[in-house]
Amino acid sequence: MYRFVFNGERNSAEQYGILSFMSSLEAKRHTLAHLLAAAMQKLHPEAKPTIGPAIENGFYYDFDTHSIKEEHLQALQDEMTKLLPHWTAFSREEVSAEKARERFKDNPFKIELIDELEKDGATITLYTCGGFTDLCRGGHAEHPSREITEHSFVLDRVAGAYWRGDEKKPMLTRIYGLAFDTKEELDAYRAQREEAKKRDHRKIGQELDLFTFSELVGSGLPLWTPKGARMRHALDAYIWELRAKHGYERVTIPHITKRALYETSGHWEKFADELFRITTREGKEYALKPMNCPHHTQIFNRRPHSYRNMPQRYAETTMVYRDEQSGELGGLTRVLSITQDDSHVFCRHSQVRDEFFKIWDIVDTFYGTFGFTLRVRLSFHDPASAEKYLGTPEIWKNAEDALRSIAKERGAEHFEAPGEAAMYGPKLDFMATDSLGREHQVATIQLDMNLPERFDLTCINEHGEKERVVMIHCAIMGSIERFSAVMLEHTGGNLPLWLSPLQMRILPVSEKHHAYAEEVLAILKTAGIRADVDGADESLGKKIRQGKVEKIPYLLVVGDTEAAAKTVTVESRDHGKKENESVSDFVNRAREEIAARRA
Amino acid sequence: MYRFVFNGERNSAEQYGILSFMSSLEAKRHTLAHLLAAAMQKLHPEAKPTIGPAIENGFYYDFDTHSIKEEHLQALQDEMTKLLPHWTAFSREEVSAEKARERFKDNPFKIELIDELEKDGATITLYTCGGFTDLCRGGHAEHPSREITEHSFVLDRVAGAYWRGDEKKPMLTRIYGLAFDTKEELDAYRAQREEAKKRDHRKIGQELDLFTFSELVGSGLPLWTPKGARMRHALDAYIWELRAKHGYERVTIPHITKRALYETSGHWEKFADELFRITTREGKEYALKPMNCPHHTQIFNRRPHSYRNMPQRYAETTMVYRDEQSGELGGLTRVLSITQDDSHVFCRHSQVRDEFFKIWDIVDTFYGTFGFTLRVRLSFHDPASAEKYLGTPEIWKNAEDALRSIAKERGAEHFEAPGEAAMYGPKLDFMATDSLGREHQVATIQLDMNLPERFDLTCINEHGEKERVVMIHCAIMGSIERFSAVMLEHTGGNLPLWLSPLQMRILPVSEKHHAYAEEVLAILKTAGIRADVDGADESLGKKIRQGKVEKIPYLLVVGDTEAAAKTVTVESRDHGKKENESVSDFVNRAREEIAARRA
Repeated sequence: MYRFVFNGERNSAEQYGILSFMSSLEAKRHTLAHLLAAAMQKLHPEAKPTIGPAIENGFYYDFDTHSIKEEHLQALQDEMTKLLPHWTAFSREEVSAEKARERFKDNPFKIELIDELEKDGATITLYTCGGFTDLCRGGHAEHPSREITEHSFVLDRVAGAYWRGDEKKPMLTRIYGLAFDTKEELDAYRAQREEAKKRDHRKIGQELDLFTFSELVGSGLPLWTPKGARMRHALDAYIWELRAKHGYERVTIPHITKRALYETSGHWEKFADELFRITTREGKEYALKPMNCPHHTQIFNRRPHSYRNMPQRYAETTMVYRDEQSGELGGLTRVLSITQDDSHVFCRHSQVRDEFFKIWDIVDTFYGTFGFTLRVRLSFHDPASAEKYLGTPEIWKNAEDALRSIAKERGAEHFEAPGEAAMYGPKLDFMATDSLGREHQVATIQLDMNLPERFDLTCINEHGEKERVVMIHCAIMGSIERFSAVMLEHTGGNLPLWLSPLQMRILPVSEKHHAYAEEVLAILKTAGIRADVDGADESLGKKIRQGKVEKIPYLLVVGDTEAAAKTVTVESRDHGKKENESVSDFVNRAREEIAARRA
Repeated sequence: MYRFVFNGERNSAEQYGILSFMSSLEAKRHTLAHLLAAAMQKLHPEAKPTIGPAIENGFYYDFDTHSIKEEHLQALQDEMTKLLPHWTAFSREEVSAEKARERFKDNPFKIELIDELEKDGATITLYTCGGFTDLCRGGHAEHPSREITEHSFVLDRVAGAYWRGDEKKPMLTRIYGLAFDTKEELDAYRAQREEAKKRDHRKIGQELDLFTFSELVGSGLPLWTPKGARMRHALDAYIWELRAKHGYERVTIPHITKRALYETSGHWEKFADELFRITTREGKEYALKPMNCPHHTQIFNRRPHSYRNMPQRYAETTMVYRDEQSGELGGLTRVLSITQDDSHVFCRHSQVRDEFFKIWDIVDTFYGTFGFTLRVRLSFHDPASAEKYLGTPEIWKNAEDALRSIAKERGAEHFEAPGEAAMYGPKLDFMATDSLGREHQVATIQLDMNLPERFDLTCINEHGEKERVVMIHCAIMGSIERFSAVMLEHTGGNLPLWLSPLQMRILPVSEKHHAYAEEVLAILKTAGIRADVDGADESLGKKIRQGKVEKIPYLLVVGDTEAAAKTVTVESRDHGKKENESVSDFVNRAREEIAARRA
């Protein structure tokens, strides 16, 4: 199973081919980047090599040329295959900056790198294999011709890339390659990628008419159509249903706040770059909320709370806003307007374990409904970067120990990840594996002993004393946008019946069956089923094809026979065809299917 | 019945006592301001008079003193009563600026006014009555002693006020008086005001624990507690229920947009002052949405629409933001974060009448449920200020003619108000009269032929041609915040059962009845009723009093008798007491009461 992070961390090794720790697969990929440069030198000596690192799933190399296109890739790949048997070992040479400059005197890109290495006082090394020499820090396959097996790599595509990622610098040509240990792994990856492309949530969103973007409104700001809003609403209603059992209550806050709130919470300083700021006509400073916790503390703090009324569980489905760089925006996976299904439990220390378990139950039920498998990441702070976090080492130790013992008691698959904590406390992050084997970070439960200090949150205990409370932050879906993207790709748009914005469509065979179609529609609506009639002047075949594109769970064909017998012929997306089923039988069957959702 | 606008226009006559048109009541009020100044001169000659106009419900006069307090009002009022019989007629004298300055040489405030009148080339007049002379433009009762009846006025309160409303100028002492034509009217006003004070929605909001404000978040930004959010949710769900019958569909948009959207819509220019603007870290310009229509046009425009699928009816409950001046913020009546229950119908011209009538049905049902009476204002444009509006005179004429004929056909009480239109089209504004006789502007339906032009909104008609559509904007509650304020004062916080955030509370007589109380609670919850148990260690009497403060519709007392017989003793807020009613009978009764809401 390939685990790659869906909306992943950016690759940090895309500079100068440096990888501080290199697996054998990474070493092979790095070697293939050299091999590509060598092939290029043979076929297109005018295309100067610049840098070429190993990356997730393969490698790339950037060349200073504008004449290489997709159609040149096959020849380059053939050349690589031809050269490979001669690549038996790398030799390493330490050189002075001067000598290195001499060696690459026709290549201003390499000269720039050499100058920097010299300035940093770094050792400058050249690596040679099969007669091809490159400026490099090392990390290659020891015996390329033996280790790199036939057909385990392929040149994938050509793209433009700015030198060193800077749009003010020259545009280069980047060639991407895919590489795995075996041909089988490469084939599996390519097949999975092909499937993922078919399942791209942007494509499904269009086919199911769920959301749209407008150039006037801007990228990263999805507009949800009637069908998309139904789907969102159904997801949200399910979460509320699960939450209601555990005593969560709705609260409602505005999307802005005076600066003072975030000065108290610490966000003004630590979250500064990502805050959308507003100055009013009177010169007051406000911010658009990037999270809901500070506002919710103010609701909790409106009056004293007896221990008898603890925990207080506030939840809210509401949009938060973060100033993401526009290059990072795409589809629903990274948006400016993020709808969080957020909640905050204010409780006593003694109640933390129970509250975590309640949330964990909700998470298991919700993700289980969709057939995701989960593992848990204990996201802890990085003691080496203490300045990124609020609070004392003791507070952090207590909070992290608590999470560790909760995860152990629950008996779930879990692992620890230092440096992944929130600003105010450690987290349990749930990682869901989808139907294509990809892993996504989804729900999160966070333990917070810092904001209660900063906002002086207390309850009155059995002895009439003020007692400091703790906060538990949790979003089940994380955000509706991101969860929708993951879930649409996981299901390929074949939404379960309870969630389908359009659960069924009635297809009259001809004009004269419209009246009966409307009759059936009325019955379905009364039964609380989301349905419509395709009244277009088109053939039945075309209507059925359209219904399948929209992935409607049930298409109900009505013609002479059905109208006479008060039946429908059911074309199910998932369960085949059933002719002439009585409307009431079918409605009962559909309602059972809807009710079968986990609760 | 007194009609005064709840969240009213500001008094424009508070300068120099000038009223361009003066009713006889206003003339009396103005006269009483003079009389107050005369009484002050007798009792406190050191307190220099400045200005004193008639205002809504009475008058005031500002004096340059800091030693007059509430306790001096009775003596001043007695003095006014003593002087009044001698005030038989006003004499008028035109004087030069020089002479006026000589007359008021000890009063720098009057000198400042005289200097300004001189600069403006205005006639300077002095008015004298009962031996008291003031700088004034006139507009008094002709025979004060005859016209102003005994006990028809009263000195009301003392407040600080800056000279000419400017906080950089000296602080004066303002004395407010109330004055009406008769003692009866004065008494009625004071009684109504007393009742209104008891019903102030801020007070009720506190007692029912519905919303709160935080200094850190800022004024005008209400935070809704669990109970308040339940109430909002119940109101909103009711609106959706009424809308669903007429084919409205939910859509969802973000709260921000690029500037381009409002440049196209015309809001960037015409709404400029009230827009909260945001500049991102990349230097892009965004705005917080002050309305939803431009975003909704972008959802409509995502694809072509056949005439077969018209109208499209989009609705959304969502917050909009307007940069109000902070002096204008107070309670829920004027907020920065406004939750609109907004909708936009995109339809053909031929469908406008039917769509208006559908909305009108919703408005009648909704406001009828609360016992408001409605009349309709046809808010038209002001042809003299054409620059305030979008669109051509023909578009406006067509739209206004359409509204006029719709209102006529509907046969509802209506009147026309030029200058009250929206930027993009005329409106039907509904005015609701509440239980205290006050009139509030509530729902609004707006016809818009301008945004469809600006955004090029069309459908494909029967002939395969593009046809320009029209938009109907409508909010039933207007905003949840403002409607909540009006409704809380209208009901005095005695919310109908379906809307009460807490529909009933179970009061165990003592500790040993807690188990049975929890048993009853479980039954109520299963029946979908919002209830809790008062488990505090307090007397039954105290618990009942607290329940009445919170205006809970039903208090269910459970003691030995009730626990043994599986009954409850019902203390109803509205229908008296019923002892030992079986739990199931009571639940049925309550559910019937809830279901009796208009639909």
